Amino acid sequence: MRDVAIIGIGCTKFGEMWHKSFRDLFIEAGILALEDAGISGAQVEALYGGNMSSGIFVEQEHVGAIIADYSGLVSNNIPSTRVEAACASGGLALRSGVIAVASQYHDVVISAGIEKMTDVGAEKAIDALASAADREWEAAVGATFPSLYAMMARAHMHEFGTTRQQLAQVAVKNHSHGALNPRAQFRNRITIDMVTSSPLVADPLRLYDCSPITDGAAAVVLVPAERAREFTDTPIYVKAATQASDTISLHDRRSLTTIDATVVAAHRAFKTAGLQPRDIDVAEVHDCFTIAEIMAIEDLGFFNKGAGGPATLDGETAIGGKIPINTSGGLKACGHPVGATGIKQAVEIVEQLRGEANKRQVDGAEIGLTHNVGGTGGTVVVHILSR
Amino acid sequence: MRDVAIIGIGCTKFGEMWHKSFRDLFIEAGILALEDAGISGAQVEALYGGNMSSGIFVEQEHVGAIIADYSGLVSNNIPSTRVEAACASGGLALRSGVIAVASQYHDVVISAGIEKMTDVGAEKAIDALASAADREWEAAVGATFPSLYAMMARAHMHEFGTTRQQLAQVAVKNHSHGALNPRAQFRNRITIDMVTSSPLVADPLRLYDCSPITDGAAAVVLVPAERAREFTDTPIYVKAATQASDTISLHDRRSLTTIDATVVAAHRAFKTAGLQPRDIDVAEVHDCFTIAEIMAIEDLGFFNKGAGGPATLDGETAIGGKIPINTSGGLKACGHPVGATGIKQAVEIVEQLRGEANKRQVDGAEIGLTHNVGGTGGTVVVHILSR
Repeated sequence: MRDVAIIGIGCTKFGEMWHKSFRDLFIEAGILALEDAGISGAQVEALYGGNMSSGIFVEQEHVGAIIADYSGLVSNNIPSTRVEAACASGGLALRSGVIAVASQYHDVVISAGIEKMTDVGAEKAIDALASAADREWEAAVGATFPSLYAMMARAHMHEFGTTRQQLAQVAVKNHSHGALNPRAQFRNRITIDMVTSSPLVADPLRLYDCSPITDGAAAVVLVPAERAREFTDTPIYVKAATQASDTISLHDRRSLTTIDATVVAAHRAFKTAGLQPRDIDVAEVHDCFTIAEIMAIEDLGFFNKGAGGPATLDGETAIGGKIPINTSGGLKACGHPVGATGIKQAVEIVEQLRGEANKRQVDGAEIGLTHNVGGTGGTVVVHILSR
Repeated sequence: MRDVAIIGIGCTKFGEMWHKSFRDLFIEAGILALEDAGISGAQVEALYGGNMSSGIFVEQEHVGAIIADYSGLVSNNIPSTRVEAACASGGLALRSGVIAVASQYHDVVISAGIEKMTDVGAEKAIDALASAADREWEAAVGATFPSLYAMMARAHMHEFGTTRQQLAQVAVKNHSHGALNPRAQFRNRITIDMVTSSPLVADPLRLYDCSPITDGAAAVVLVPAERAREFTDTPIYVKAATQASDTISLHDRRSLTTIDATVVAAHRAFKTAGLQPRDIDVAEVHDCFTIAEIMAIEDLGFFNKGAGGPATLDGETAIGGKIPINTSGGLKACGHPVGATGIKQAVEIVEQLRGEANKRQVDGAEIGLTHNVGGTGGTVVVHILSR
């Protein structure tokens, strides 16, 4: 098995991109990644595209082919594969690209993620997102994603004493990070009061506990680690690429307050990399709702169970804290184009490890982690990256 | 890169399976494959599921997780990944599984394919299938798949003199093969007259030139070649797994009568395997329409351009002929559950190479090929398998 490195990154601005189409977005991200890697499209040997639900959002399947075509990559007839695991589709695209390079099937691979969510109305978008849950046992009986995560939040508050203010601080902190990120959908700073007085969505979760509906795309370029310095002076190495599944339905889980697939994927990742949670300098985790970030930083091993809320309120997860979490602004403030998020997380960590994160820079960051969740935890993908 | 072998196969009956759900189908195929391999679910390390459009057909995305969950494979939290390239999704699932084993990431992998198409009406199904074409430049202006392939057929008739009778003989031959296959959707024999007098769909293609809308699932179990004999006395080896892309739109192609992605994927496959087209004893090719089979057997190198129609009429592609094509009945008679077809093709070839194809058996078959097309040729996946 060959080691793999990231030599190029690209990411569009995230937001409600009325003036850009599905195609415009992935082309822009791809070109940025190729330019960053200093290579031409003709050097690309394969492409993996993460996308959750283009069939519903833009009535287009066969996404790998359309990306390759409109990006001008069909002149070499490269293999182009769409992978999907709901909101973890981007993470899967990264892992699939890593495996393709590790296998020696391909040398120069693009892993990309794309979602164009605003071409449909909110009702259709919410229904599309509900297809990430168990349609027959959850969505069909009215369980939307805010309601499923609300149950986790309520259970976490009951079991560990997590408070409304601690949840709110996740959003406050991620907006403060997003304010520093030119790509972020929301760059306004907010307060705990603004979160706790925002409209109720699914008790206890309010509007500012929820990540938004977003358009965006991101891409990274992968090569064998031994070839990385042919392309760049600042390769970032993939130390682990792991994935775990769990029951798709929340009601079938062992616990409402732990996402077991996160625990397992993280355990596999740390074992593969020969590292511990304390070795991680910066992490992008899946904060689709505020409670999701608190559970993630516990399940990844950064904090003990129940300690995630207090640590957040104490500033330990802010830039300058013990372990900065979601320096991009996270899903909450940077935005959550579902198929793109997993790749955007990698783009952010690469910028941090290269020392190119400007106002968001975590001093001396050498090792970073990404954590991408599908649904309520039916799929989790974890990557550990290092300088 | 490790060599890979297939040690187990499973396939449901194909057809309008009103009494079976999406979940029932993939569970059945998976259990059949595990039983055939003589292993338990606990030994499976990863799963790749090919599916084109479950978001539209059954309103369910996050397909990898739901397959792993309902198949009981989440007890080990295995990675489970959906791949999609329209009607080539099954072939992609096979290739993705092969790469995962070759990479040393995983040893025992299931590659499966599934589509449940009959839960929606014909109009919605046809629209879902149109999402495999370019939605903005083809589907939105009314180009359905029969009309796109009809243009290829007309061009092929003009350029090479291919006749209406030659096209019809593809369907006649595939129905005669399907009559021998207990899994086939259609087991009735038909005549050239029945094809040429069936209702016109898109001139020159008639109803019996078109593959049907089908429910079904199929699965294969993959292991490293060096471990294959731990599991079975009849391993089938993967000699090549290749994939190529092309423009998604037909009007952007160099030719209407050649699918370049087939030519490229086949060239790569024969080069990888160190074989020639004449070495292939039996092949499953993508006959979504009768013209597609004629183009495929030419583009794969079995016949010169223009010779596919006459060879078909002369019986060279029937069981007992020079190179039997679509012994399963093909997409036309066995049926075409779009995400499952690529895996069903592999199941058929494995049965042929094991000598277990009963009345469909090609005497002495040692090397077989599968050819799976997405859309009108935006994606093509080719596998070469051998005893």
